[in-house]
Amino acid sequence: MASSSLFSTYPLQGSVSAPKTIKCYGEFLPYFSSHFAQSPASTPRSRVSFNVKSINWEQSGRLLPRNRFQCQALDVDSKPSILDGNKFQLDDVIEAQQFDRDILSAIFEVTREMEKIEKNSPGSQILKGFLMATLFYEPSTRTRLSFESAMKRLGGEVLTTENAREFSSAAKGETLEDTIRTVEGYSDIIVMRHFESGAARRAAATASIPVINAGDGPGQHPTQALLDVYTIEREVGKLDGIKVGLVGDLANGRTVRSLAYLLSRYHDVKIYFVSPEVVKMKDDIKDFLTSKGVEWEESDDLMEVASKCDVVYQTRIQRERFGERSDLYEEARGKYIVDGAIMGVMQKHAVVMHPLPRLDEITVDVDADPRAAYFRQAKNGLYIRMALLKLLLVGW
Amino acid sequence: MASSSLFSTYPLQGSVSAPKTIKCYGEFLPYFSSHFAQSPASTPRSRVSFNVKSINWEQSGRLLPRNRFQCQALDVDSKPSILDGNKFQLDDVIEAQQFDRDILSAIFEVTREMEKIEKNSPGSQILKGFLMATLFYEPSTRTRLSFESAMKRLGGEVLTTENAREFSSAAKGETLEDTIRTVEGYSDIIVMRHFESGAARRAAATASIPVINAGDGPGQHPTQALLDVYTIEREVGKLDGIKVGLVGDLANGRTVRSLAYLLSRYHDVKIYFVSPEVVKMKDDIKDFLTSKGVEWEESDDLMEVASKCDVVYQTRIQRERFGERSDLYEEARGKYIVDGAIMGVMQKHAVVMHPLPRLDEITVDVDADPRAAYFRQAKNGLYIRMALLKLLLVGW
Amino acid sequence: MASSSLFSTYPLQGSVSAPKTIKCYGEFLPYFSSHFAQSPASTPRSRVSFNVKSINWEQSGRLLPRNRFQCQALDVDSKPSILDGNKFQLDDVIEAQQFDRDILSAIFEVTREMEKIEKNSPGSQILKGFLMATLFYEPSTRTRLSFESAMKRLGGEVLTTENAREFSSAAKGETLEDTIRTVEGYSDIIVMRHFESGAARRAAATASIPVINAGDGPGQHPTQALLDVYTIEREVGKLDGIKVGLVGDLANGRTVRSLAYLLSRYHDVKIYFVSPEVVKMKDDIKDFLTSKGVEWEESDDLMEVASKCDVVYQTRIQRERFGERSDLYEEARGKYIVDGAIMGVMQKHAVVMHPLPRLDEITVDVDADPRAAYFRQAKNGLYIRMALLKLLLVGW
Repeated sequence: MASSSLFSTYPLQGSVSAPKTIKCYGEFLPYFSSHFAQSPASTPRSRVSFNVKSINWEQSGRLLPRNRFQCQALDVDSKPSILDGNKFQLDDVIEAQQFDRDILSAIFEVTREMEKIEKNSPGSQILKGFLMATLFYEPSTRTRLSFESAMKRLGGEVLTTENAREFSSAAKGETLEDTIRTVEGYSDIIVMRHFESGAARRAAATASIPVINAGDGPGQHPTQALLDVYTIEREVGKLDGIKVGLVGDLANGRTVRSLAYLLSRYHDVKIYFVSPEVVKMKDDIKDFLTSKGVEWEESDDLMEVASKCDVVYQTRIQRERFGERSDLYEEARGKYIVDGAIMGVMQKHAVVMHPLPRLDEITVDVDADPRAAYFRQAKNGLYIRMALLKLLLVGW
Repeated sequence: MASSSLFSTYPLQGSVSAPKTIKCYGEFLPYFSSHFAQSPASTPRSRVSFNVKSINWEQSGRLLPRNRFQCQALDVDSKPSILDGNKFQLDDVIEAQQFDRDILSAIFEVTREMEKIEKNSPGSQILKGFLMATLFYEPSTRTRLSFESAMKRLGGEVLTTENAREFSSAAKGETLEDTIRTVEGYSDIIVMRHFESGAARRAAATASIPVINAGDGPGQHPTQALLDVYTIEREVGKLDGIKVGLVGDLANGRTVRSLAYLLSRYHDVKIYFVSPEVVKMKDDIKDFLTSKGVEWEESDDLMEVASKCDVVYQTRIQRERFGERSDLYEEARGKYIVDGAIMGVMQKHAVVMHPLPRLDEITVDVDADPRAAYFRQAKNGLYIRMALLKLLLVGW
Repeated sequence: MASSSLFSTYPLQGSVSAPKTIKCYGEFLPYFSSHFAQSPASTPRSRVSFNVKSINWEQSGRLLPRNRFQCQALDVDSKPSILDGNKFQLDDVIEAQQFDRDILSAIFEVTREMEKIEKNSPGSQILKGFLMATLFYEPSTRTRLSFESAMKRLGGEVLTTENAREFSSAAKGETLEDTIRTVEGYSDIIVMRHFESGAARRAAATASIPVINAGDGPGQHPTQALLDVYTIEREVGKLDGIKVGLVGDLANGRTVRSLAYLLSRYHDVKIYFVSPEVVKMKDDIKDFLTSKGVEWEESDDLMEVASKCDVVYQTRIQRERFGERSDLYEEARGKYIVDGAIMGVMQKHAVVMHPLPRLDEITVDVDADPRAAYFRQAKNGLYIRMALLKLLLVGW
C-alpha cells in the first residue's frame, strides 16, 4: 500500500464512542500503525472493517491518500467493545527490519491459529471473496506454491503470473509502477517476487492494496526471515537466551543475514558464525550485532559449536557465486557438513534448520532424527504466509 | 459455439405457454439471436436456462446442432412472465463488428451491474460451478489476468494454459479444431488468444461451448474495443456527438482501428487522426468511416486537436514494426506526446485514454490529473469481461 | 503415500465396536488395502474418515508410519453400520499393473457416478477444502488440464507447477524426495508428471499424502490406461470376449502396451497387432499375453482386422522416434490410416479409439461417424480422474 507519514498523527473521524488514537513506532513508520482494536482478539474482524475493495470503491479511480479510507473503514467497526490492548495495523510486508519483537509476537500468535485452521478446518472461508495476485518477475516455484497454498487454505483465490517479466518492463518498457496500477485493479493483494533490490518498496508505494515482498533480488525475503524465527520459537520454546550457529554461505545468503538481524530483537542471544573463509559473514552484520549488544563469535569447529547451540542453521553453498573457480566451490561446499557425527554431539532439545533446497550439506540419514526441523520449517512457511495474508486482508 | 444459420428461423419446441419467435439481425447472424426474454431484466436467469453443461449432457457425445439444445434449455425457463423487450442471445465474442449500438448498450448495462458487484459483493457466486479455460497460444499476461480475475470475481473457476502452442498444432501437429474438441470437454467456456488471424472464428465454429476471442494475431481483440467504448461513455457521459482524437501508431494498432469501427455506430461523431507519417491510418478505415457518414480529418497539430476533443486516445509506437530503422522509430515515438502542456489546453470534461502499456508517450506527471482515464480504462476491462462471461454462461 | 508391508497385517487399534481386519492382495500390496467399509456404498464417506490433513496433524511433523494414522482416522468412522462388502483402499496410482478386474470394476462404478455429477451437479463440493498440487517436471497441458478440471468439477482447489524441473533437482540439485516433502506440506494430493521412469514410485514412497502418476517418462501413464478400458466398456458394453485391433506405433506407445496389459485381466479377449515393420509390438508383451492365455495375432491387413474387431485402437506414429530416418517415418505413418473405407467394413457396434493428439492417421471425415469414439474417450479421462481423486481423498 502507499504509505503516508501523516498517518501517524491522523485522528480517526466519525461517530465512534470510544476514543481512538493512532500511534506509530518511529522505526516502522512506513509499515505499521497501531490502534486500540475494537474487537476481542479471538473474533476475526468483520469483512467490512478492512475491506480493501470497499476502500477502492470510495476512491473511485482517483489517487487519494489511502489512509483516509482506512480510517473511514475502521469507523464501520467502531462499536464500543472489549479493548484487548495495542494491536498493529499491518499494511505491507517489505523487509525484515519492519518487525520488532512485539509485532513478531503478535504475528506468531496468529500463525499458531493458522496451524489449527490448516489442520482442523479444511475449507476455511476466512479469505473467501479475496483475490491474491502472485506477480513473479523471476520464477520461484517453492515460494509461490507456499503463498498460493496459504491463500487457498483460507478460502481465497489466486491469479498467477509466473513470469511477469514478459508482461511489463523488460518486454515492452512499462514501468513497475504502471504494472502495479493495472494489477491492483484485478486483485486485493499483490505478492511480488522481483530481480531488483527495492522493487517491493516501490510497488508498495504505488499500490492502494497490500503488497508482500516474496524476495527482491539480493535484497530482502522477509517472509523467510519470519518463518525462521517462528520455527526457532516453536522448536526451542523460546527466543531470548538462545545460542544459534549459522553455518555455510554467510556472505551471500540473505536468509542468514536477515535472521541475524531479527535475532538482535531478543535478549542474551549468542550467535556463532561457521563458514568457509571465502564466504564469511560480512562486517556490516557483525558491526550491527555488536551495536545491539548481541554476542557473536566466528569458529571453524562445527562440532564444538553444534554441541553448544540450540539451533544449527545450515545453508547451501551457492555454486553460482563462484563463477569459474569451481575448485574454491568444491573446497567450500565440503567443509561443514551436518551428519550423524554432528547430531551425536548436539543437545537433545536442539534442532537443525535449513532454508532448503539442500544438496549434501546435511546428509540424508539426518532426516530421520526428530531434531531435523527443516521440513517442519518449510511447513511453517505456509502458516506464516496464512497469517500475513489474513492480517493484511481482514486485520487482527 | 458452433453456429447455424438455421437458428434464425428455428421455432422453439416444447410445452411453452407464451409464443416465442427467434429473430436474428442479419449482420450479426453468426453471433447473436434475439428473443423475447421471459425473465425481468433485473433477475438473473436461473442456472438451468442456459446451463451449458446440461446441454452437453443431452448431446451425449454426438455432435448435434447446438441450437436445438439451447432452445430446449430455454423451454425450462418458459413460464409466462413479464416481457422486457428484445434481448440478445450472445453465443461467442469473435470480432468488434458483431456489436451494434443496441447490443453495446445492453452489454454496458450489464457491465455497470458488474461494477457494483465487484465493489459491493465480494464473493459473488453468479458463476459458481462454471469453469473457464484460458487457451493462450501466445502469452498476454495482462489480458489473461483480467479475464481470470473477472471469472473469479463472479465465483467461477479457471483452467490456465499460458502457452498452448506447445500442446497442440505447433508441437505435435494437432489441429486447432481437435484441441478445441478436447478442451471443451473440460470446461464451460474458452477464452482464446492466438497468433493467427481468424483462429477464434475457427474455434467458435467447432466448439459446442462459448468462445471469446482474446486477440487473434493482427486480427481482432474485441473485448479491448468494448472496454474502450464503455470507458468513453462512462467518462464523457455520451457516445453520440463526441469528438475523438486518435493519436500515435494508427497503422498497426488494432485497438484504434476497432475503436474507429465501433464509433461509426454512433451519431455525429468526429474523429481526428494524429500520427507520424510512417504510421498513418490506412485507407480502408477512412473509406469505411466516410461510407458510414462519420466525419474525420487528419492533423499534425496535437495541441489544437486536444483542445477540441472529448477524448484523446493515445497509443504506443511499436518498435517492433520498424525493424532495423530505429532512426524512424525514434523520430516517430517522440513526435506526439501527451504532457502537461496538452492537458493545459484540454477541456475540463475531456479525458486521456491509452490501451496500455505506455512508455513515454504520456508523461508520468499527467497521471495525477483527474482526466487521466487510462488506469480506470484498464479496470473497465475487468467489468466488461465480467459482463461477457456472465452473458455467455447464464444469459441476461 | 509411503507404503509399508506391515500394513497388511496391522491390526486396527482403538475403541471400535465392529472388528476390522486389514487384508492386502499380494499383487497390489504397495498400493491397496481392503477393508470392510462401514458406510453404505451410496453414501460418500464423511470428510473425517480419510481426512489426510487431520492425519498430518497427528503426525505433528514427525515421520511416523502413515498407516498408523490411517487406521486411527478410520476409527472415527467406526459406527456399526451396513457392510457393503469388500472395498479397496486406494493409496496411490502408480502403474497399470496395480489394477485387477475387481478394482477396475469398482473404479468404473465410481466413474459413472462422476459422469452424472459433471453433467447434473455443477458446483459439486465433494472435494471442497482439498488442494491438489500438479507437479509437472515436463509440460503436458492436455493431461494437466484434465486433472485440474476433474479437481475443480468436484469443488477442490489446485496448485499448478507447470515446469517443476526449474524448482528442484535440475536447477539447484534438490532430490525428488526433498521436493515431495516440501510440496506435501502445501497440498493434500500430488499429481506428478516426470521425465524419468520410476519417479512416481519414488515420490509415493516418500509422500505421506496420495500420489498419482500422470506419466513418468517411457514408463507408465496409468490414468490413460484406465480411461481406455473404461471407454471400451462404455462404448462396447463389455470387456470379456472382445476383439481389439491395436494399430500404429506399437513399439514406442506406452498407451497400447498398458492397454494390452489390462486387457489380459478379462476373459476371451483377442488382440490384433497392426503396425509398420519398424514399430512392431515387442516380445515382452506378446509373451506376457501368451502366458495369460490371451489370444493375439499380427496382421498387415487393417481392413480385415477392422471388419472383425469391436475396437480399432489407432495411434500416432511418433516422428521423434525415427531420428534422421525421415524416409522410414514417412513410409510408416502412411501405411495404416483409418478412413471412410475402413469405417465401411467395421461392424455397426464397433468403435474407433485414439489417445490423441492425432495427425492424419484418422481422416477428419471419420469424426462425424457415431463410431468415432476418440473425443468421448478424451472426455472419459475427466471422469476417470474425478473418480481417482475422489477415491484417494475421501474414499469410496
